[in-house]
Parts: sequence; structure tokens; C-alpha cells
Amino acid sequence: MALDDIAALTFDVFGTVVDWRGSVIREGEAVGQRKQVTADWGRFADAWRDLYQPAMEEVRSGRQPWTRLDDLHRASLDRLLPEFGLAGLDEAERVDLNNAWHRLDPWPDVVAGLTRLKRRFILATLSNGNIRLMVDMAKRAGLPWDAILGAEATKAYKPLPQAYLGTADLLCLPPERCLMVAAHYGDLLAAQSHGFRTCYVWRRAEFGSRPKNDLPAENHGLDLVVEDFDDLADRLGCA
Amino acid sequence: MALDDIAALTFDVFGTVVDWRGSVIREGEAVGQRKQVTADWGRFADAWRDLYQPAMEEVRSGRQPWTRLDDLHRASLDRLLPEFGLAGLDEAERVDLNNAWHRLDPWPDVVAGLTRLKRRFILATLSNGNIRLMVDMAKRAGLPWDAILGAEATKAYKPLPQAYLGTADLLCLPPERCLMVAAHYGDLLAAQSHGFRTCYVWRRAEFGSRPKNDLPAENHGLDLVVEDFDDLADRLGCA
Repeated sequence: MALDDIAALTFDVFGTVVDWRGSVIREGEAVGQRKQVTADWGRFADAWRDLYQPAMEEVRSGRQPWTRLDDLHRASLDRLLPEFGLAGLDEAERVDLNNAWHRLDPWPDVVAGLTRLKRRFILATLSNGNIRLMVDMAKRAGLPWDAILGAEATKAYKPLPQAYLGTADLLCLPPERCLMVAAHYGDLLAAQSHGFRTCYVWRRAEFGSRPKNDLPAENHGLDLVVEDFDDLADRLGCA
Repeated sequence: MALDDIAALTFDVFGTVVDWRGSVIREGEAVGQRKQVTADWGRFADAWRDLYQPAMEEVRSGRQPWTRLDDLHRASLDRLLPEFGLAGLDEAERVDLNNAWHRLDPWPDVVAGLTRLKRRFILATLSNGNIRLMVDMAKRAGLPWDAILGAEATKAYKPLPQAYLGTADLLCLPPERCLMVAAHYGDLLAAQSHGFRTCYVWRRAEFGSRPKNDLPAENHGLDLVVEDFDDLADRLGCA
């Protein structure tokens, strides 16, 4: 399928651009060391992330009014802290640990790959992360986004249609001129159902030793499947 | 007044960051040359810009539903073309000329100044220009924004309160931690009334040989008055 008319790449971020699990483990370990608490920080990262979809579902369903991801993360964190020996964290410590999501490290290929892709395409986030979270992450990691779009800009959490369609609209592009880039098949299928082109990125280490979920089906109908962002830049003919 | 707690700089763009008038003149001249039409392109630029506030006022007042600036610019352009001998432009030519606003040149100090400021502060647009317009302009001119906010992100044209307050909210900052940077006193007074800190930038050539309007009053109550973005970076102690 020709991809010549792609004008913008829209990126899932958690897992696709950044290693959320490794980074949250690092942040948990640091807090553990400061507080002299021993815990399984891999399990902590997984438990926090496991509350991510249910928290957003409250908002998607309308049972809870629009709430930015920072606040959803914080409510989940407050629930989890006792289980990991951190019930004693004070407000400032909780705010700081919650901001772990602003300090996620990119996968090693990301900055070089995005830099190549940026010369030819508009690069926008299409993440469920809120704008300030994405801004802080980008400044720390040097991610050269052209625009921070996605959930907060459209007031809709993926996979609601408005997250995708609203992002394309803010870019003044028909969906078929946007290439959704994600390491999660479900995200790509949702984007595709609204007319986006799709690119699956293997991020084999996203879940540590847990196997990846959300793999592409055998006859997946995706436009591209790539190893990493350098591979993507190659496939799209970027210098 | 101490400015130590400023976390984000929010920028007016047309006139403050880019030379809209000189750039629109350049674009008018180019079309005139292609079409062998002679006109006063300075008057064309001024006439187009003179329709800017009235067009936005239709939206601000609620008489017209939300309409992005590209579309307001286009309606104004269609009105003006006959007067400047360009009634014969076809649809593609009109789209291209309307995109002149995506190709505005920055003032000479801008890229270096923003690059210095970006190391210490979040840099966000707080312009009435729509997101795609700002993205195209930034890519062409190398403007290193961290986020494109302002009118389209808040669905409110300045000086409506929501343009300022909504932008601060998207940055997760109280208004007093945002410094509004503009070459227009009215914009700064509106921002200040909602708690923003304020910086006036002299852009003495904004209107060509027409005198600048929108100068600061004598006892202006602004936090900073600077010559250009290098001066601003100096005043804020950026390396």
C-alpha cells in the first residue's frame, strides 16, 4: 500500500516511545532506597499500569467527568502505596513519585529515529497522557514533537473515536494522511477503523519478562510492521 | 518583582515572534509576479490583517460557531482579492496564498533567543493561530516550541479569559507561574487580569512605516519590558 501521501505520524507513547516499565521500576527503586523499603518494583510498575485502563474506563464511560491522566495515575498510586510499604509517603513525595510518568526514558532508537522522521513529517503525540506530562517527558528526553495532541487535546481517551478523529482534525488532515504508530494492536485497529494508516512497532521488552500482549493478528491488515523508529525512517524513505 | 517562580513562557506569535507584515508582503509580491498583477502589497497585508479582529469577534461573540483562524483568514482573503486584482485566483491558488500565514518569518533574534529560553522554561504558543498553522510555521522557521496551545486548544480567541486560563490549565500551572510575552499591550493586560506575569517586547517594525499601536501606558505595571528575545533570555538569567 502506497504511503506517499502520509503527512503526519501520530504516536502512541507509553510503550511505543518510552519504556514505562523500566522507568517506573527505576523510580520505585529510588524511593525504596530513600525510604529503606524493600519491594518488588517490577510488580509495583505492573500493578500501577494494571489500574490504567480501568481508571480511564471510568472517564470514557461518562461515570467520571473529564480527568487528566496525572490525576488518574495519582488515585491509582494512592491505592497501591500501602501494599508496597509506602503508605507513609507525604503529599510532596506522592506528587514526585506520580511524576515518574513525566520522567520515562525513551527506547534507545527513539531520538535518532524521530529526528530523521521530523524532516519529512509532522510528528504528533496521540497518547492518553496529558499535555504537561508529555511536555515534561519530551524536554527531559529530547523528543522533538511538533505538537502534543491526543487525549487531553480532544478530551477523549483512546480508543474512543474522538481521540483519533479529533487529532486528525487539529492537524487539518483527513485520517488517511495520518500514520498511527503504536506497539499495541488494539490501538492500531481503532485508528484504522477511523481511516488512519497504521504502523506496528515491536517493543519486545515492554513488559519485561511478561510476554507482550496486543500482538498483531496473523493477517493483520496493517500498513507497516517495523522493528524500531530507525527501521520506520528507513521504510518511509527518510534520509 | 521576582520572577523566580516562572515555569512557562506563553507567547503571542503574530508580530511578537514573526514578522507577519513583511512576510505577507513577500507572499503578495510573489503572487503578483506570477499573475503579472501590480498592487500595493503593503496595503494588501494591512487590509488582510485589518479584517482579523472583526472576523474573530464574530466567533468571540457567539454569532459564529468555533472557526479556526485558517478559515477566518480565507474568508477575509476572498473578500479582498478583487480589490487587489486577484479575483481570478483559482481554489488551489487561494489555498496556497492563505497558507502565507503558515510561512511567516521570525524576527532575527527569535530562534537563538527561544533556544536559550527553552533550557529553563516550558515554551508554549498562546496565539490565536490554529494548531496546524503554528506547526507549519514552527517547522519552516525552526521554532522550538514545547507545546502549541492558545486559541484552538482552548476553543477561545484572545482576549477571552478562557484562552489564557485554559492554556495555564493545560500546562498544569497557576497563571502566576506563566509569563505572557507579547508585543501588544492589550494582550498583556488581558493576561495580567487573569493572573499571568507579563513581558512586553518591542517590535518596532511590526507595522512597517505605520506607527505601532498597542504601546504600554506610562505606568504600565508590566513585569518586564524587553527589546527582543535575547534581551528576555538575559533578563531571565538564561545561559
